[in-house]
Amino acid sequence: MEIGIIGSGKMGAGLGRLWAKHGHHVMFNYPRRPEKLGAFAQEIGPDAQWGTPRDVVRFADVVLLAVPWSGIGDALSDAGSLDGKTLISCVNPFGPGGLEVGLTSSAAEEISKLVPGAAVVEAFNTIFASILYSSADLFGDKPPTVFYCGDNPEAKTKVADLIIDAGLQPVDAGPLQNARYIEPLAMLMMELGHSQRMGADIALRLMHPAAATEPLKGAEELAGSRS
Amino acid sequence: MEIGIIGSGKMGAGLGRLWAKHGHHVMFNYPRRPEKLGAFAQEIGPDAQWGTPRDVVRFADVVLLAVPWSGIGDALSDAGSLDGKTLISCVNPFGPGGLEVGLTSSAAEEISKLVPGAAVVEAFNTIFASILYSSADLFGDKPPTVFYCGDNPEAKTKVADLIIDAGLQPVDAGPLQNARYIEPLAMLMMELGHSQRMGADIALRLMHPAAATEPLKGAEELAGSRS
Repeated sequence: MEIGIIGSGKMGAGLGRLWAKHGHHVMFNYPRRPEKLGAFAQEIGPDAQWGTPRDVVRFADVVLLAVPWSGIGDALSDAGSLDGKTLISCVNPFGPGGLEVGLTSSAAEEISKLVPGAAVVEAFNTIFASILYSSADLFGDKPPTVFYCGDNPEAKTKVADLIIDAGLQPVDAGPLQNARYIEPLAMLMMELGHSQRMGADIALRLMHPAAATEPLKGAEELAGSRS
Repeated sequence: MEIGIIGSGKMGAGLGRLWAKHGHHVMFNYPRRPEKLGAFAQEIGPDAQWGTPRDVVRFADVVLLAVPWSGIGDALSDAGSLDGKTLISCVNPFGPGGLEVGLTSSAAEEISKLVPGAAVVEAFNTIFASILYSSADLFGDKPPTVFYCGDNPEAKTKVADLIIDAGLQPVDAGPLQNARYIEPLAMLMMELGHSQRMGADIALRLMHPAAATEPLKGAEELAGSRS
């Protein structure tokens, strides 16, 4: 795939690097602070392509948006039209007091409103970037789970493939609206890693015993359910 | 410990049964529908003790509240004073349209306001009850994670022990306010099990590589962070 990366943080660099290793063509946008370019290029390797946000979008079928919540307006405005593109958002609505949207909306839904012509898929927002740089066997044969959600099936299939190519376990979490349930999980991971001092090498995995074949019959299984 | 169970659903019965097996003294409140008592008693075993909600609270140091969200007012009113007790809440604020509280509050915080004299700890609300009834090796030597949160350290220590006694992995998720990030995860699990038809044997595990000893230094690791 032709993949564009908007955002030059650890997450964008880490995923772009892994995808490039898998034979995808990856273009990064130049970092906002040019003095960071050297270190960033070193992380990614010599084959990286670079461009302005508009170059990146023109180049790519799939665009990863990996910028802080406060930066999405500028980033999407710099990027120009995303019509027809698959836009992967790993943006979490973190603010000084916690999550800035939730319950009745989510960062992914707000981003989708800003670029209605793009097929937005939320993914990669509950994993720490550092695990993208770790040795392949940090978690043995049990890779961490990446929940992804969105409303466009073709776009979701592409994203599931890219999750696998990043060495992670894709789990389809339904429509884009379910980002309301995934973004708080990112906040929980931040609390565990930071406030609870568990570090940045922790990750969640959804376990699904091979013997389990019965679909859940009702909404009665979790306490407080609507049944 | 002397443990009281308020709520006669699968979650309360399943946890009470496991704790009784570990030598704890467990009292259940009579089911609201007496015709259910036979099946329920069969699930738990012959040694179960029974009582009214008030009997249960008088008997117990630790009380598990395992009722639907819509039933917490009645249940707490029937229970009487919970002053000085550890109250474990596994209640999720599920309503017909999704979560009924979140972002700025949580079921656990609302419950704590109703019983200010109790030390409320949220736990067990993101696991499906069915895994409590499964064979011990459903997940091998990797038991599912139970996140717990609360503001009273002694109460949290008791709950961590009870999570272990239920064969699960306790992970301290910080203050009670962090229930705002855990209850959406319960909704995500419902979506996966039910809408995504993954079934009720799925569970999450927090993985923490043995090599990982470095605490997370800043809030920069997840995309969209406040840094």
